Order: sequence, then C-alpha cells, then structure tokens
Amino acid sequence: MGLVNRKIVLVERPKGRVSVENFTYVEEEIGDLPDGCVLIEVGHLGIDAFIRTTLNEDSFHQGAQIGGAIPALGVGVVLDSRFDGLVAGDHVFGPLGSQTHSVMPGGFMRKLDLSIAPPNVWLGALGLTTGLTAYFGIIEVGRVKAGETVVVSAAAGAVGSLAGQIARLRGATNVIGIAGGPDKSRFLTEELGFTAAIDYKNEDVAARLDALAPNGIDVFFDNVGGSILDDVLMRIKEFSRIVICGAISQYENMESVHGPRNYLKLAERHATMEGYAVFHFSDRYAEAETQLAEWVRNGELVMREQIERGVENFPRVLQMLMTGGHHGKLLLAV
Amino acid sequence: MGLVNRKIVLVERPKGRVSVENFTYVEEEIGDLPDGCVLIEVGHLGIDAFIRTTLNEDSFHQGAQIGGAIPALGVGVVLDSRFDGLVAGDHVFGPLGSQTHSVMPGGFMRKLDLSIAPPNVWLGALGLTTGLTAYFGIIEVGRVKAGETVVVSAAAGAVGSLAGQIARLRGATNVIGIAGGPDKSRFLTEELGFTAAIDYKNEDVAARLDALAPNGIDVFFDNVGGSILDDVLMRIKEFSRIVICGAISQYENMESVHGPRNYLKLAERHATMEGYAVFHFSDRYAEAETQLAEWVRNGELVMREQIERGVENFPRVLQMLMTGGHHGKLLLAV
Repeated sequence: MGLVNRKIVLVERPKGRVSVENFTYVEEEIGDLPDGCVLIEVGHLGIDAFIRTTLNEDSFHQGAQIGGAIPALGVGVVLDSRFDGLVAGDHVFGPLGSQTHSVMPGGFMRKLDLSIAPPNVWLGALGLTTGLTAYFGIIEVGRVKAGETVVVSAAAGAVGSLAGQIARLRGATNVIGIAGGPDKSRFLTEELGFTAAIDYKNEDVAARLDALAPNGIDVFFDNVGGSILDDVLMRIKEFSRIVICGAISQYENMESVHGPRNYLKLAERHATMEGYAVFHFSDRYAEAETQLAEWVRNGELVMREQIERGVENFPRVLQMLMTGGHHGKLLLAV
Repeated sequence: MGLVNRKIVLVERPKGRVSVENFTYVEEEIGDLPDGCVLIEVGHLGIDAFIRTTLNEDSFHQGAQIGGAIPALGVGVVLDSRFDGLVAGDHVFGPLGSQTHSVMPGGFMRKLDLSIAPPNVWLGALGLTTGLTAYFGIIEVGRVKAGETVVVSAAAGAVGSLAGQIARLRGATNVIGIAGGPDKSRFLTEELGFTAAIDYKNEDVAARLDALAPNGIDVFFDNVGGSILDDVLMRIKEFSRIVICGAISQYENMESVHGPRNYLKLAERHATMEGYAVFHFSDRYAEAETQLAEWVRNGELVMREQIERGVENFPRVLQMLMTGGHHGKLLLAV
C-alpha cells in the first residue's frame, strides 16, 4: 500500500453562497511520479477570495473541475522529484490544491529561499495573493503619495490589512479601513496603525467617510465592490485613483453584479478606476519581496495569521473567508 | 422702449425624458449694462448633452435655475461693453444661455480669433465641448497609439464623430463607431473615414464587436454608458483604456444609473476606466486648437453641422439631441 492523498473535491458548483454540500472528502493512493513532476507534502494552504471565483462556471481564474481538488496556493516540502532543479527536502510554493499531497510539474513550483522568510510568510506578507498584491496595488496602481487620504475596504483581511500598512509606509497620512464589526475596527487602529476604521456592519459608511475624510479621498483600494464602492465614488477627489483589486461582495452573485452606479464621478473628478492582477507585475516580484521582507524584519509590517487545521475543513474555512469571520491571513494547516 | 431679450426659461425640472412642458418662452426688456459686463447678441448656441444634466436637481454642472435661461455655450457679437478688453463688434464665445441677448461679466467671455476659424467652428471642431473634449479624451486620457483598435459610442454625434477621426489621425488602424440607424452608419464610414460602424438599433452590438474587433479593444471612448459599456468591457484587451466622457443614456435616469456590471474585467485585463472633463486640460487649449484648426484646414477633420433655427425651438432641439435625431454638431441659430 503506497502513500495516500486525502483531499476535498468539488461535487457541484455553488449557486450563490458556498455550502459544505458542494464538496466531498476522498482518499486516493498516489501512483508513480511522472517524469518532470514533483511530489509535495502540503504544509499550509492560503485561503484566498479568488478560490471562490474558481468554483463558478465562467471563472476568469483557472476554474475548479467537478471531481477535482480546489485550486489553492500553498507551501509544502518536496518528498520526491523527477524534475531537475528540485530535490527532496526543498520548500516550495505553488498551486498545491485542497489536498495533503500534490503531484505537480516541477516548473509550476517556486523554490522558497528560507533565508528571506519562513514558509508561512511566503503565503502572507510575501504572498503572491497577499503581500505582492497589496504592494503593487498601492504603489503602482494606486500611486499613493505622501500626505494622501487612502481608504481600504475588506481592511482586516489579508490583502487589505497589508494595503493599508503599505499606504502608511509610503507616506499616506490618513489611512481609513472599512471592515465588519468592532473587533476588526480595533485590530485596524490598535494593531495595524490605521488612522481610523469604519465598521460597515454597525456604522453608516457614507456619514463616517464624510467625517473621517472631509476633504475627500485620494486613493481607494477596493476588494469589496457593491455599495461601499458607490459611497466612496461620491467622495473622491480630483485626480484620485480607485484600485480594483477584487470584489468579494460580488463573487457569490456573478450573474447580477452590482455595477458602480456612481461611476460618472470619474468624469467629474478626472479620476481613474484601474484594475490589475498581481501577475501583471511578474517581472518585479523580487523587488517587492525584498522590500516587504525588510518591512517585516523591521516590524513595520504586521501580518496576523489565523491558522485553521485539517484538509477536511477546507469547505468550512472557505465559508469563513466569504463571511469575513477572520482577521488577517486565513491559513489551513493540512 | 429698449432692446428686448427673447428667451426660453425653465419652469420645472424634467423627471426622466425632457418635455417641452418643462420650459416656457418669455420676453423681457434689457436694462442698463452693469459695470464690468458686456451685452452680446447671441448668434449660435451649441446643443450639448451637458445641458440635460444642468436641468437635474443634483447636477454636477452649474445647474439651471427655475425661471432662468438654460445654460448653453454659444458664439455671438458684442453690442455694448463696460468691460476692458472687449468692444462692440468683437466675436465672443461663452455660456450665453437660451436667449437672443446675453448680459455677462466680460471675464466669462472669450474673444474669438477669426483668423484661426470662423465663429461656428469655435462651437464645432474647435469647440470646448466638442473638438477640445474629443482631442484630450483620445490623446491624453485614451492615449491612442498607432495600430490600435478604438471603439467610439455616440459616434455620429459631435464629440464622437471627432473622437473617431482624431483616433484615426493618431494612427489607430481599426476605428469602430457605434450609432443608431443605417444613415448614421453610412455617415461614419463614408463621410468620416471610420473603419466600420455598428447600428445599435438594428444590430447585435456584442456579436458585431466580436466580428469587427476579434482581437479585442484597446480604447473605448464612451459617451453613452449602459449596456454598450458592458458589451465593450467583456472585450477589452490587457492594458486597455476606457475613456468616460459622458453617459447620455443615463442622463434622463440619474436616480438609478446602470453601473457597469462588467467592471471586474478591469482587474482581469489590467485595464483603466478614466473619466475627465475638458476643463481639466484648460492650460492646453491653445495647443489643441492649433492642431485641430490645422486638421480642419487640411480637410483631415470633418465636422458636420446641423443647424436648427429660432430660440423658441430650444426645447425641441434639446429633445432631438437626447433622442439622437441628428448627425454631427447640433446648433441653434438664435
């Protein structure tokens, strides 16, 4: 009896909210390793919002297949290799999926340099979908400058919490985070150094934005979309930038997305709404990783991790992400 | 008995479609000219889409007042002046309003240099809301480059017809105009040199875009919004630019604007949606006017004018603009 892979696979595509019924748990024996591939023992998986979009039929990310593991980025250790350039014991990062073991073409894996940061940090502050996404969104797309007022939605999440801190490190003097619940508000202002927080579940976002940004908003880093984007659009300054990183409020409702009704404010204020995905900056990952690692070492950039355990809990943890029941980076220890 | 001003004033703000009932015709004697002001005999008024937005309660343009003339840009001749720098006989451009005579602070007026172009051209190819708007939208906001595919909505209108031609003059090799009706399609391709036209009233815009721009769209110059913007968003290239100039389809429905549902394509394609108003480029009008005048002289830029007559017809001509019953620049000879 060989090594057994334990995994969560997709049974049916969720309609609207993701349900544990959409998935099932399976075990399968791992066969011979194909040439050019590596066998990886999965350590941690990052639970990212993009995972939800892979479950939809018309996904712009590489879609999840019915009967297959769910796409998720993770870190792990190479157990066996038939790929030049990786050997047993190497720590790697890549699209390992919702399983305990992953057989992947070696070229899909990135060997981690643990002298820069330990494995989990490569999913968090230095992660592709977190640190690097926040870095390029704030610096290149948002072009945040000293003295500016920056608003971040989903601010207690992995990307948002880093985006707000990076904005501050780039000189923004008024960094306002929008998140759900008083705990998250405290987390933003007391642990992460945001100037102020708005609890969208208990406060009037529009009125709070008026109070906290009376002169308007220079940059909005948006991971939410929906009515919050409309509230911000009403308050943007001339020459402001809206960074479209994602729209988690819309991912469970892609059939009838709420388009930003107030987008004509872009014309009035000569403002820009610019979208991006981190892979558009793939030639500059090293630069960003060096800067992010330095900020982490100096204690200037904080990434809180929330670690859940057990591959069988993948569906429940994905639900937790979608309903915002977490702080910082949500990880699953497989 | 002094000189009489004949004008159209606003009686009530239109709800939805503009109606002739929203206006009335009045005559009033013109009083003494205040210090610093000029009396102008209005020649032609430009009938622009922004006029419709001034009729709404929450207008971002200077709103029309109940009982007052409707804001409209026009050209005219100074009859009397108590302003240094303008004398009787000068031709001027400015916010003259829906009336035969206008008393305005002299500083609001621009003296026209008729050696560059005759008066009407200052409302058309060189007009603030037409030529200059198209020029900066295509060149500065859209950043159209040689070889690109450019789509223009409301393409048979004043701004759109110039925007498409300027895109071609800047080297775009595939310029697609969207307009309503077969006459307008012929106008675009046969008179204005557009590569192709889409008749949105009789053709499937999405299917036609697929056929005419099989490799996607680099720049969209949008004056319409609504479903056409959504159709284009589905077909934008990476690093494409969407220029938000206006949204005439939404101006009669500002209470429930159709926001662009497919705006998340901006993130997928690293695309930009940027709005502007011409006055954001006020320090560069002279440059644009020089270039536009040269193109007009060389016959490279064509501006068709449709001239209606009589100040009392202002409401009807505004309706004509809103329903697209015109080609090129709609003018009212007062």
